[in-house]
Amino acid sequence: MSDPIQLPQTPKGALQIDLAIIEAAATRVNPYIYRTPLLQSPRLNDFLGFQLLIKAESLQHTGSFKLRGATNAVWSLDKDVSHVVAYSSGNHAQGVARAAATRGLKATIVMPEDTPAIKLEGTKAFGANVITYNRYKESREDIGMELSKKYNADLIKPYDDVRVIAGQGTVGLEIVQQARAEGVLPDAVICCCGGGGLIAGLSIAFHAHFHKSNIWCAEPEFYDDTKRSLESDQIQRADTKQISICDAIVTPEPGKLTFPINRQHLSGGAVITDEEVLKTIATLFKHLKLVVEPGGAVAVAAALTGQIPSGSKTVVAVASGGNVDNTIFKRALSAGAFF
Amino acid sequence: MSDPIQLPQTPKGALQIDLAIIEAAATRVNPYIYRTPLLQSPRLNDFLGFQLLIKAESLQHTGSFKLRGATNAVWSLDKDVSHVVAYSSGNHAQGVARAAATRGLKATIVMPEDTPAIKLEGTKAFGANVITYNRYKESREDIGMELSKKYNADLIKPYDDVRVIAGQGTVGLEIVQQARAEGVLPDAVICCCGGGGLIAGLSIAFHAHFHKSNIWCAEPEFYDDTKRSLESDQIQRADTKQISICDAIVTPEPGKLTFPINRQHLSGGAVITDEEVLKTIATLFKHLKLVVEPGGAVAVAAALTGQIPSGSKTVVAVASGGNVDNTIFKRALSAGAFF
Repeated sequence: MSDPIQLPQTPKGALQIDLAIIEAAATRVNPYIYRTPLLQSPRLNDFLGFQLLIKAESLQHTGSFKLRGATNAVWSLDKDVSHVVAYSSGNHAQGVARAAATRGLKATIVMPEDTPAIKLEGTKAFGANVITYNRYKESREDIGMELSKKYNADLIKPYDDVRVIAGQGTVGLEIVQQARAEGVLPDAVICCCGGGGLIAGLSIAFHAHFHKSNIWCAEPEFYDDTKRSLESDQIQRADTKQISICDAIVTPEPGKLTFPINRQHLSGGAVITDEEVLKTIATLFKHLKLVVEPGGAVAVAAALTGQIPSGSKTVVAVASGGNVDNTIFKRALSAGAFF
Repeated sequence: MSDPIQLPQTPKGALQIDLAIIEAAATRVNPYIYRTPLLQSPRLNDFLGFQLLIKAESLQHTGSFKLRGATNAVWSLDKDVSHVVAYSSGNHAQGVARAAATRGLKATIVMPEDTPAIKLEGTKAFGANVITYNRYKESREDIGMELSKKYNADLIKPYDDVRVIAGQGTVGLEIVQQARAEGVLPDAVICCCGGGGLIAGLSIAFHAHFHKSNIWCAEPEFYDDTKRSLESDQIQRADTKQISICDAIVTPEPGKLTFPINRQHLSGGAVITDEEVLKTIATLFKHLKLVVEPGGAVAVAAALTGQIPSGSKTVVAVASGGNVDNTIFKRALSAGAFF
């Protein structure tokens, strides 16, 4: 088992995350992740009437940004930890599986029985032991807690974990660096939001550099719990009986660690229907040549459906993942692009 | 109309292309093109048993590398030229249309009636005037020549044009720079080959830096005219009555300017069936989250089908374009990935 890189550690339970902690996370994760490009399309810009920069985390190893937080957590562990446990709908699962493999740790991952096949297969391919559960009858938190005790393992939660939030924040850091390299100052950033780990980390990093830009969350229809929580200034739950194709971000409520951060940073939210998600996937296929999964498409959908406030000149949207099964992708192609 | 950037000009008819001419082309085209990433996938590397770096020109503006050569040609023109003409199956068409638009020139493009819809639409969207012809009954060369006389326009040929070859060569320059930044020395490069403009320019740039690496062309079944020409050391024709899904690279024979260059640089070729192309597109969808068109997939297919010589440790494959219609992409998804 390798030694962790010697860096200021991200304390597991602390609420305080600042730019320095995210910069330390970047130094820790950079050898294991891919610095994804900030893409744009001349035709898409013409269509929208403003410049849209797409942070293509779909091109990240394991197919989503989740590798970042997982890698920061894994490479923050003490040397005597040899096993990690995680529960996840699929992207965090693959992230933890791959991160554990890079450090030679065992990984046990709890996943719903109805996880998309591509995510289940990917998690196993990275060498993790997968345990499935029924998401309507069992509690993944309880199973995860039990397994971590049984194996004396570290439990890496998908978003309510400071190490994970700090790791996801490296997306924000890269956007700042890439926007500066392009000579642009984004006046808005749009990012998907499930538990809120990515947008929380991103917001801290982004606002540390660009104080005046607005940051907006994008959520699927019925799962706009963060938007409603922001509007009422208290935690609101989603109706988890509703069906959505955005499997990666259908969380029941905002995270306990993430919401206090997002409350400080976000200007509001956009809500995206399944049909809009499908048309966005088709648009990204046609004009950007990107494969994006439903949950990863909502931020771009917010721009395409005109939900972001008028007057923006340069907008960044995060395309957070690309782990989509053939069936959904074919449905998206049949739905057709916005233009 | 803007002035051209003051640089050593690429003479239109000269046979001699060297590194300096490609470096000048890079300076000329860089403001208008996207520096595409060199991607890899840990799972794909495990599957292959060597490191495969994919130069994702599918992510280039207009969806293919053709923008590079077109931009070098357009920005090499004298100030008094106000109109360009090109003939193309679709990717060069979009490249010339976009390049002309960046300099405020008129563009007239001759395209086959049966061009994939996405390429026809893209060419028109960049503001070009499109003229279609019947590829079984008419000569695009004759139509192009006639139109260029009629409009007093510059004819930008798809591959037998030194300015175009030099522009495509910037792909090779970037691969060299990106491989060095990654600290790797590729022992092989695989690149698709239609008329041979891309692989000719790439070879000059690549071999100027990495003398000992092998460069291989990849061609569709029935259209392996460059491979056979290399083997017999004289120009061989393809049987153009045969059907192939690789619309971008089904040229009748090697180019007059490109073949003498490729003869010097290439080690040989791989031949890819339609079925292998479809499975490669599905593999790039699943593991790299890339949208690649049939002609753009043949180089990666050469690696996936084990046609490149054994013993390679680090291989670069160019994924040259992503302009694929929904129908073909759905067929690829149904064919399924290699793993």
